[in-house]
Amino acid sequence: MKLSKVAKAVNGTFTGDGEAEIHAMASLLEAREGDISFLANPKYAAQMKETKATAVLVAHDYAGDCPATLIRVDEPNKAFASLAPIFGPKPVVREPGIHATAVIGEGVTLGKGVYIGPYTVIEDGATIGDDTIVDGLVFIAQHVTIGKGCHLYPQVNIRESCVLGDRVILHAGVKIGTDGYGYTVEIGAQGPVITKVPQVGIVEIGNDVEIGSNTCIDRARFGRTRVGDCVKIDNLVQVGHNVQIAPFVGIIAQAGIAGSAKIESGALIWSQAGVSGHLTVHERAQVAPQAGVKEDVPEGEYVAGTPAIPKRKFAEGLLLPRLVDKLKKKVADLEAKVKALEAK
Amino acid sequence: MKLSKVAKAVNGTFTGDGEAEIHAMASLLEAREGDISFLANPKYAAQMKETKATAVLVAHDYAGDCPATLIRVDEPNKAFASLAPIFGPKPVVREPGIHATAVIGEGVTLGKGVYIGPYTVIEDGATIGDDTIVDGLVFIAQHVTIGKGCHLYPQVNIRESCVLGDRVILHAGVKIGTDGYGYTVEIGAQGPVITKVPQVGIVEIGNDVEIGSNTCIDRARFGRTRVGDCVKIDNLVQVGHNVQIAPFVGIIAQAGIAGSAKIESGALIWSQAGVSGHLTVHERAQVAPQAGVKEDVPEGEYVAGTPAIPKRKFAEGLLLPRLVDKLKKKVADLEAKVKALEAK
Amino acid sequence: MKLSKVAKAVNGTFTGDGEAEIHAMASLLEAREGDISFLANPKYAAQMKETKATAVLVAHDYAGDCPATLIRVDEPNKAFASLAPIFGPKPVVREPGIHATAVIGEGVTLGKGVYIGPYTVIEDGATIGDDTIVDGLVFIAQHVTIGKGCHLYPQVNIRESCVLGDRVILHAGVKIGTDGYGYTVEIGAQGPVITKVPQVGIVEIGNDVEIGSNTCIDRARFGRTRVGDCVKIDNLVQVGHNVQIAPFVGIIAQAGIAGSAKIESGALIWSQAGVSGHLTVHERAQVAPQAGVKEDVPEGEYVAGTPAIPKRKFAEGLLLPRLVDKLKKKVADLEAKVKALEAK
Repeated sequence: MKLSKVAKAVNGTFTGDGEAEIHAMASLLEAREGDISFLANPKYAAQMKETKATAVLVAHDYAGDCPATLIRVDEPNKAFASLAPIFGPKPVVREPGIHATAVIGEGVTLGKGVYIGPYTVIEDGATIGDDTIVDGLVFIAQHVTIGKGCHLYPQVNIRESCVLGDRVILHAGVKIGTDGYGYTVEIGAQGPVITKVPQVGIVEIGNDVEIGSNTCIDRARFGRTRVGDCVKIDNLVQVGHNVQIAPFVGIIAQAGIAGSAKIESGALIWSQAGVSGHLTVHERAQVAPQAGVKEDVPEGEYVAGTPAIPKRKFAEGLLLPRLVDKLKKKVADLEAKVKALEAK
Repeated sequence: MKLSKVAKAVNGTFTGDGEAEIHAMASLLEAREGDISFLANPKYAAQMKETKATAVLVAHDYAGDCPATLIRVDEPNKAFASLAPIFGPKPVVREPGIHATAVIGEGVTLGKGVYIGPYTVIEDGATIGDDTIVDGLVFIAQHVTIGKGCHLYPQVNIRESCVLGDRVILHAGVKIGTDGYGYTVEIGAQGPVITKVPQVGIVEIGNDVEIGSNTCIDRARFGRTRVGDCVKIDNLVQVGHNVQIAPFVGIIAQAGIAGSAKIESGALIWSQAGVSGHLTVHERAQVAPQAGVKEDVPEGEYVAGTPAIPKRKFAEGLLLPRLVDKLKKKVADLEAKVKALEAK
Repeated sequence: MKLSKVAKAVNGTFTGDGEAEIHAMASLLEAREGDISFLANPKYAAQMKETKATAVLVAHDYAGDCPATLIRVDEPNKAFASLAPIFGPKPVVREPGIHATAVIGEGVTLGKGVYIGPYTVIEDGATIGDDTIVDGLVFIAQHVTIGKGCHLYPQVNIRESCVLGDRVILHAGVKIGTDGYGYTVEIGAQGPVITKVPQVGIVEIGNDVEIGSNTCIDRARFGRTRVGDCVKIDNLVQVGHNVQIAPFVGIIAQAGIAGSAKIESGALIWSQAGVSGHLTVHERAQVAPQAGVKEDVPEGEYVAGTPAIPKRKFAEGLLLPRLVDKLKKKVADLEAKVKALEAK
């Protein structure tokens, strides 16, 4: 698309080569020739000189240097977002219908407007709510209940009797309802005897939950592993059996929550952090990336480190080497002085 | 199910509303209205006041307060477990048989009582033992050997020539026999030349092994990556090429074992821990959650931290800030005293 | 295969039982009866006494003890590798062709020599280059572009409009183009309102890239998440939206790169490490296993710890307990001396 046409689309003005071709959108630093970018936050103004974009959307009063052609608009942020339908990926539209290859069991209830993709398997007694999209290669086991307006991407697996609310998004490869890790160990005459503890609960997921690719949520030993409304979980996260996640919790990539832990409303578990079993992370608390929680985290606290401690204390710990170095010098100084005094 | 009927099912006695409806099982803290719970371990007695359960199974002599209707039984623990067939998910039964859509290659040997689910692919020369269940959407490559009584959940992949023992459980999304991470790097005239090292070994898994969802086990460079009998591996674990895991080892969620490491019998690798390549974790040693093992771990040792050190030493390290603070005060005190002495 | 025949195959000489059966290859320590091993690096000479191998390939001048039959050859390393076609897994050959069960959408362009496996789904407008192998149970969404000579293993998912170069290997379960983790949070009258930020960019992968099992790479918010030529990524890695990975980067198992981070050419991110969002790991820098990068890493630097600091500083920190212990003794000594002086 010609630059002049793009400028028109965002209701902008420019001086320069309107014939230049624009192919894609990118941030200032990521852009290359043929890309259009934008400057909304003055924090990134320094990137304007370095950008390889062909065009940049800026505010009317922008006065800095930039090798790209500037297109002046009212709100660069919004103008940029408005270009997504033109330059972004073509949206995927799933017309309601059941693909001829889908295997649908007995007693399955499908709502209105449901889409079921190729090679998806839905076992006996499952229920799928109105307008839900189940992509291809998904496996939904018997008696699973899925609400309205959900979207399950390819290669998702939901084990038997688990329950999903409305508008739940499960990205590719999510596994819901795997057996939790539970064994009894007895030392017999011939060595250890390890027995699997039956995992006869389910996973229950609320409304408006989104779960990232390849994340795993284990079914409960008894009862339910629970993920509350509006919880947002990133990729490759592990949620153990009987974990209770309250509404409005965020869990970032590769974090892990061990069995029976409780994450209260508004808490944030950052990437690669771990929460040990049976603990509570209280309301609006945050667990720093890579932190390891070994005791309850109080309401609103931000903890870091392994074992996790309040952020302020953790920061103090980082100053320790410098503190010890200072002490070392002071002690050497004292030793000299004491030696001198003794000599007198 | 009416509370009175539940009480009868567990051979219990109660005083209260026998007409109340019970729908599900849950632990004391997780329970909500309509749930039945239990108190077996006095440790959780404090939770009795807070529970939202409608009924709780307790011992005959329990005397504490509880808002729920108490059902008195001989062994609350066992009585509770006995309710799983009533309130838990309906068990999945896989009648022996090959689904019409399964793609079975040439020269595949299937034992008696085998179940193969929809859209599963089994390539040439594979062998599946008696009574093994292979769910839908599984891919088993050529010449794989699987023992008796195994259960492979959906979306498992087993690469060519890998070997599984008897009664192995692979949960959804497990990937067995992926190429290990191996390259040679040469700096050529035009920059680095990176060449893939062929990974021409296999993975060999013993009997009674269970492996959690989305866990990956790499094939050997040569020979075999080995997982011994009775090893239990959790979700999202990484096992590198040529790793040797002895029998009776446990590896908890998101831990990683780098190439050619050796984990000896009875060892436990806790969640998110890492073991570097070519090291040995000796018999019955334990690696704490998030620990990073950089040298061999002696028999029976419990190590923590990155790099991992014995737990006792690690605990001492945690006291360092307090120790330094004390020293700081002592040094300030000494400085004052020395100054006073010098003044004399 | 008889030992004598193996010796002949590697052009080697031996004294001992030529009738012994050789079944498999293994390293010295991993070997058991019936295995053949090799000694190339003198570092492993001590393992020669302990090996359970039936035969070992050694150099002509090897003079140490070993319970196995020694087969003397010119280059043990190469001789061993040459046995892989005999004892290693039978190579998988994918004859070009489209499996009858593959679902191919409208307007899909397939190059020459392409293989598409059973139950694979390729949606409208996708392009697959010459000689590319797409195994069974793969899902390729609309308008995806894949280059020549690629290999996609089972259960891979590639979301709409993503682009792969030539000779890209995606191992089983890889998920390309998942929505990134992005939300806006507003506190409304009825509590928090969490809104998903549309992720309307793509993932663009260069040539000669290899990506390990169950690794996830998120699509960009706008524009492209980029993985440069010759990048090698291990299993279970997380790459966030808009991450920019330059050519020749290595990322080892279970590491995570947060949104918009930049990894420059030749950098190595070791296992379980994390890089926070919007940071740059500069050329040839290395991030140690389990390290947590919270600020830019300079060119060529090796950082360790959380927060990550230069390796030398990190090593100093490990000496802190000993240093503090020494100081403690010195302070006690000084206290005694000062007391004595005061007493005078």
